[in-house]
Amino acid sequence: MSLLVVGSVALDSVETPFGKVEDAVGGSAMYFSTSASYYTNVSLVAVIGKDFPQAPVDFLKSRNVDLNGLHTSDGDTFRWKGEYGYDLNEAVTLDTQLNVFSDFEPVLTEEYKKSDVVFLANIDPTLQLQVLDQVEDPKFVACDTMNLWINTKLDELKRVLARVDMAVINEGEARMLSGESNMVQAAQKIMELGPKFVVIKRGEYGALLFTPDDVFFAPAYPLEAVFDPTGAGDTFAGGLLGYLASQMTFNSQTMRMATVVGCVMASFCVEKFSYENLQDLDYKKIKSRFEKFQNLTSFDSLGEL
Amino acid sequence: MSLLVVGSVALDSVETPFGKVEDAVGGSAMYFSTSASYYTNVSLVAVIGKDFPQAPVDFLKSRNVDLNGLHTSDGDTFRWKGEYGYDLNEAVTLDTQLNVFSDFEPVLTEEYKKSDVVFLANIDPTLQLQVLDQVEDPKFVACDTMNLWINTKLDELKRVLARVDMAVINEGEARMLSGESNMVQAAQKIMELGPKFVVIKRGEYGALLFTPDDVFFAPAYPLEAVFDPTGAGDTFAGGLLGYLASQMTFNSQTMRMATVVGCVMASFCVEKFSYENLQDLDYKKIKSRFEKFQNLTSFDSLGEL
Repeated sequence: MSLLVVGSVALDSVETPFGKVEDAVGGSAMYFSTSASYYTNVSLVAVIGKDFPQAPVDFLKSRNVDLNGLHTSDGDTFRWKGEYGYDLNEAVTLDTQLNVFSDFEPVLTEEYKKSDVVFLANIDPTLQLQVLDQVEDPKFVACDTMNLWINTKLDELKRVLARVDMAVINEGEARMLSGESNMVQAAQKIMELGPKFVVIKRGEYGALLFTPDDVFFAPAYPLEAVFDPTGAGDTFAGGLLGYLASQMTFNSQTMRMATVVGCVMASFCVEKFSYENLQDLDYKKIKSRFEKFQNLTSFDSLGEL
Repeated sequence: MSLLVVGSVALDSVETPFGKVEDAVGGSAMYFSTSASYYTNVSLVAVIGKDFPQAPVDFLKSRNVDLNGLHTSDGDTFRWKGEYGYDLNEAVTLDTQLNVFSDFEPVLTEEYKKSDVVFLANIDPTLQLQVLDQVEDPKFVACDTMNLWINTKLDELKRVLARVDMAVINEGEARMLSGESNMVQAAQKIMELGPKFVVIKRGEYGALLFTPDDVFFAPAYPLEAVFDPTGAGDTFAGGLLGYLASQMTFNSQTMRMATVVGCVMASFCVEKFSYENLQDLDYKKIKSRFEKFQNLTSFDSLGEL
């Protein structure tokens, strides 16, 4: 089924304790669509500048990502510069240059408006609302957000949340948005704002999925070499929504599977810089990593004591 | 089978965002033996002062904990005062009064020396070594430690680690002890010091079990009300070692079960102050919570995409 993502395509300069890259390909929509492309047909809405390299565009085409919504504007591509310490859970932003992204106005083609599943990546909630106003009858809509929008555009963000089925946000943002430190209470407060499903991303600790009926704890894979966490959250969302779009059922069991698929994809992402490690995956590699996740969490039933 | 714990029995004054208690019953051996008593016969070696109340002693007796090793010395009981912010993962120590604990010398009865399973709770590694010199042929020995001993008694601690089967430590201590930020590498470094099994406690994120063959991720239960995390780590270890002592097999599957049992017991502990919520458990309550953990982590196999 068709999956639409609206977000950023960027050039990231990242330094981790294990190395550094300059102007590496990144952005939420880039990671998301690459990840989701292993599960379903993806359409991408984003903007790049004239300086954006051709290779990642060709790569997305090779993954059958529909790029009719990828607009090239006069000017430079959105740039983000950040660094991570040994605690890879938290990035320090050193510089942000919006460039062509500052005038970004998501315009959906007639075909895009009919998308079955929509992901509103972390962009200004005003733009997220513009997307929601354009899509016609999506079966499932999810959104991400960040501390900046919680602080500066809370009203708009709440209007977004009232119209989505799922919020996919990280733990700190969940606390900030809900005013609750306890994750169960935070998820409940966020559900009261609209979404039926809340997914809390916890970096190297995995993810929590809250549904109206229950809660699911998906682990992150304890990798020997975590190289660069940039894009892990969007890669996670890409696996999650890509899998859901491939199944088009939204019950608790499918949601659980989708959350694990998200963790599987994120585990590939962090092993190398940029989207390098997401470029040559296939069903066999994904299935093998998925089975490692099963082994990671499986245990027997408790017998008599 | 017989399980011996050597550690502290204390009076804790604790403040969390949800309330406060003064001189509440605590200490590693208290939490550990209460938790383990639901699975096996426990013997306790610790020291208390003349001011220690009778009720918790009577309670331990009612749980069939052997208290021949609980020595009452002239003076006051070990006291710890601490507080937690909304991030309940980290306690701030406000005051420590060793009192009778400063002269503590663990002396094992002839029966205790024959214990099958031994847990060296977080005490001075010099004392842990004294215990190891006394036990005769234990089938399984585990130890805990803390940042203080890593900083001040690293040589002694390494001699302890060389003689135990399992280290049960928290994430920050694992990083400090190994000099590695990555948990897989940290666990490997710690295994090189001696223990075949390493369990990393991660507070509200659960626990990781590293065996020579694989790794297991046990979740913490996302509770709506976490009241006081004091004692959770020792309660976890009590469930883990208590279950192992009840099974007396130490393969990967039993280890996994034991780790989940530890998480189950810790989940009860944190719901109230002190050991209050550990006092009236039974198999039915434990089994029911265990099944919640199963539901929390279960997901299907990945089919064709």
